[in-house]
Amino acid sequence: MRLSQFHLHTSKETPAEAEIISHKLMLKAGMIRKLAAGLYTWSPLGLRVLRKVERAVREEMEAAGAIEVLMPSVQPKELWEETGRWEKFGGQLLKMQDRKEAWYCYGPTHEEVITDFARQELSSYKQLPVNFFQIQTKFRDEIRPRFGVMRAREFLMKDAYSFHVSDEDLGREYRNMYDAYGRIFTRLGLTFRAVSADSGAIGGAVSHEFHVLADSGEDALAFSTGSDYAANVEAAVAADPAPRAAAGESLRKIDTPHQKTCEDVAALMGIALQRTVKSIAAVAEDGTFVLALVRGDHAVNEIKLGKVAGLAGYRLANEAEIQQFLGSEPGFLGPLNPRQPIRVVADREVAAMADFVVGANEKGFHLAGVNWGRDLPEPETVADIRNVVAGDRAADGGEIGIARGIEVGHVFQLGRKYAEAMKLTVLDANGKAAVPAMGCYGIGVSRIVAAAIEQNHDENGIAWPEAMAPWQAVVCVINPKGDAAVAEAAQALYRDLNAVGIETALDDRGLRPGAMFADMELIGIPHRIVVSERGLSAGTYEYRHRRASESENLDRAAVLAKFGR
Amino acid sequence: MRLSQFHLHTSKETPAEAEIISHKLMLKAGMIRKLAAGLYTWSPLGLRVLRKVERAVREEMEAAGAIEVLMPSVQPKELWEETGRWEKFGGQLLKMQDRKEAWYCYGPTHEEVITDFARQELSSYKQLPVNFFQIQTKFRDEIRPRFGVMRAREFLMKDAYSFHVSDEDLGREYRNMYDAYGRIFTRLGLTFRAVSADSGAIGGAVSHEFHVLADSGEDALAFSTGSDYAANVEAAVAADPAPRAAAGESLRKIDTPHQKTCEDVAALMGIALQRTVKSIAAVAEDGTFVLALVRGDHAVNEIKLGKVAGLAGYRLANEAEIQQFLGSEPGFLGPLNPRQPIRVVADREVAAMADFVVGANEKGFHLAGVNWGRDLPEPETVADIRNVVAGDRAADGGEIGIARGIEVGHVFQLGRKYAEAMKLTVLDANGKAAVPAMGCYGIGVSRIVAAAIEQNHDENGIAWPEAMAPWQAVVCVINPKGDAAVAEAAQALYRDLNAVGIETALDDRGLRPGAMFADMELIGIPHRIVVSERGLSAGTYEYRHRRASESENLDRAAVLAKFGR
Repeated sequence: MRLSQFHLHTSKETPAEAEIISHKLMLKAGMIRKLAAGLYTWSPLGLRVLRKVERAVREEMEAAGAIEVLMPSVQPKELWEETGRWEKFGGQLLKMQDRKEAWYCYGPTHEEVITDFARQELSSYKQLPVNFFQIQTKFRDEIRPRFGVMRAREFLMKDAYSFHVSDEDLGREYRNMYDAYGRIFTRLGLTFRAVSADSGAIGGAVSHEFHVLADSGEDALAFSTGSDYAANVEAAVAADPAPRAAAGESLRKIDTPHQKTCEDVAALMGIALQRTVKSIAAVAEDGTFVLALVRGDHAVNEIKLGKVAGLAGYRLANEAEIQQFLGSEPGFLGPLNPRQPIRVVADREVAAMADFVVGANEKGFHLAGVNWGRDLPEPETVADIRNVVAGDRAADGGEIGIARGIEVGHVFQLGRKYAEAMKLTVLDANGKAAVPAMGCYGIGVSRIVAAAIEQNHDENGIAWPEAMAPWQAVVCVINPKGDAAVAEAAQALYRDLNAVGIETALDDRGLRPGAMFADMELIGIPHRIVVSERGLSAGTYEYRHRRASESENLDRAAVLAKFGR
Repeated sequence: MRLSQFHLHTSKETPAEAEIISHKLMLKAGMIRKLAAGLYTWSPLGLRVLRKVERAVREEMEAAGAIEVLMPSVQPKELWEETGRWEKFGGQLLKMQDRKEAWYCYGPTHEEVITDFARQELSSYKQLPVNFFQIQTKFRDEIRPRFGVMRAREFLMKDAYSFHVSDEDLGREYRNMYDAYGRIFTRLGLTFRAVSADSGAIGGAVSHEFHVLADSGEDALAFSTGSDYAANVEAAVAADPAPRAAAGESLRKIDTPHQKTCEDVAALMGIALQRTVKSIAAVAEDGTFVLALVRGDHAVNEIKLGKVAGLAGYRLANEAEIQQFLGSEPGFLGPLNPRQPIRVVADREVAAMADFVVGANEKGFHLAGVNWGRDLPEPETVADIRNVVAGDRAADGGEIGIARGIEVGHVFQLGRKYAEAMKLTVLDANGKAAVPAMGCYGIGVSRIVAAAIEQNHDENGIAWPEAMAPWQAVVCVINPKGDAAVAEAAQALYRDLNAVGIETALDDRGLRPGAMFADMELIGIPHRIVVSERGLSAGTYEYRHRRASESENLDRAAVLAKFGR
């Protein structure tokens, strides 16, 4: 593509409405333009990237045996009533009435439609297993659409739905899709993690999310260096702590007049934060006063705490309750010497501590050298009630790392929920009607574009992975109208690169070098080759990779070698 | 593709709901399934065909210099109010409200959105000309959706919009698109015509329709063998008639007791229908009684008659009026001897007739040997008021033919209507704000699939043009599980054909030959190659083209030669 014949429209200004870097860069690069809240037009440049993602997804889905279909975006209410989701789906469902006043919705997902399709198509176990996918426009009426195409209302999605005679076969296809997703994100050149919300064993899991890793990601993910184990940080579990050491210190009271946090106390005492214990006062639904203890450097995980027996629906205690049960104000709380009986829930790590520091339940004082069994009873309840942190030992022996991610894919074992609700049956090998098991597998095609930018950018703009770049390479011409020899050499190189399968643009727009290079860095072309009079006379081109800090003067063969040619 | 791993689902039954052949065959072949009125899911088989059309359209649009974008399907009311179309567009516009009660529509077309996009993108004449296209889902809420994807409510369309500094440049791009459309339909292997609603000269025309020719087409098209001239039959004009011959017969009254039509009178008299004249009684808006005369073998064209001076808004006369002005009952009407003064409007052909036959304005009688100027005054008004018919001489000297067509494309010079309404301006070469001229160019991508079937089918099913077929060729295996040598030879041939770029399916489903062949004929695969034990031992394959009546036994080289390999 000659850029003089392409519609490239970059901007130097940083758009005020964009909150995240991918949205900013997509607007600056002119990849998208806003039509209305959560509605974007993909410009020629943006669409080139979107189509690359689409193609990679399609080809890998086909290679994995899925078969493409195309379902309508407008879906009749009657189908959604069969599954009860017309009411249950909530405000994201965009509803509309046609000229006959019949109700429809703009499909946010297609479980109902594919199950209806399957009712028409599938009648025998011999037709199973089958996995239908489509790449299609969806609409979800977000309360607060923002972040550009990261959370747009209208978006491009790949959704797949599989049908099986048995749960085992569903499990097999689930694994097949899990693997295909890995190939898709690998092929796109993205650093990603598949994370589980439960035990993490893929075979038994009913759902995995695929996240593109990026510091700006909305979700915190825990992963282990020892295995594929990864989970949303709220669900992640560290290994059991080492056994408790023997008591070495005697109990003593410490003067902490202004030290209300573990950090301050540790600093005052000159000890590691890991030797302090944080006390969180809560009240169970039955009125029991609970003191939850986690290590000073840890944070309570509210979901885990709520799963402790008796603590479903707990709430934090107020100051009056704290005074009533502990006789102290917050900042000096601890499990020793409560004013009234309390329930102590210790995190596994806290239960394994010796010689630790806690609040004294007395304003201005903490206790040091505290030991379970000696200074206070063993904790009534020991449980995993904290968030994992980077550096934790994982159950698999590896070390836990924390990463932030953007969810771009989701695989799910639906089981028979939709098939039963919509009365989908096929005849099994014995001639009896059987309800097929279903899986569904989604990828946010348009979201991947934004997620890739969050992961791949610098202060000059986007730095596309090669597979997603609008072009792999650009040949930049210095003064194309002024110097015929340079223009001709550039065109020849441009044609040659394309001829050997390197997708190359020719920047023949006649911009000043600085503006031209800035544009190419902003839109993130991986390989830049500059043709200039000086280089031409030396028989070289100025080559620079988007991620390199310096350019190199290379002859034609060396340029081709950069592409493995 | 091995069909055992594809989801093929044909049916022997002719679906009752389908009115036209393409709808019937698409359902029987399992290309589409109905979701709701005017909403269809494209099955794997159907989608393969749809994608071929899509690809041909995309590649030819790109080759013609258009640049692809992707606009949202959901469009805000505010834009449509800028052009006044929110109210004017009518019932086909599907309107909806989001959770904030803001109004949107599901885009039936994108003039407003592209003009808004252009307002953001275009600021200088240097960016023009530019032609943006997209291939995207549209929705038109048809009163009576029917004929399957031929007139579906949700459908796939290619729409393009060009922007120009001058009308001349718009005319150039219009011609460019006109030519590209020709290449698209030619490449798809379709017989088509571009037709004009006006003079037919492409340069001056503001609109052309592209029709796929098929006997079942909704529109009648007139074309000339002498040039590219073609027009909707209502708009077509034949050449001026030959000059009137001299009178040769004397006026005489003919006894026609039961002959009320020109056909019956001509049969009774043993003369050509072309020598009779049909009288149509009408009343102009000012009350004038009008007798419109066309040749017995011609039909009045109501649009043309309405364009005659004084006849805008005319209506047919009732029997009382006919009695009042002509003194006769219908079936015996004519321009001679009216009871009260009437206005005679003669078609050009009638005005050029001599010795013709008309009704006598007397029940049971006609007049023969009638001549203008001798037996009755020359007609007050002579005009073209008839439909052209096959065999007419065209103005270009050729002969007019009539064909029936299905509209699949439309090119249109919009001029400045939308740009002005939406205040789109660019700076011209003098630095002044100028309103660009616009063109728009549509193709009904999904409709082409149905239109192609209307044009290409026989009693056994679809007979795809090669470029649209789901596969070019199919290798059919007789008894794949029973005969390993046959199965192996079939697989080898299947692989070989694909390897040389012939898109080939392998029918390894294990059906009986009759059922397998019937399926392949129904879904319309152009080339069928049967591998059987008998053929294998003779070193031949049984080859048959979808349109051939006989199969041939060919060796491998002869099979490849069928593909020009």
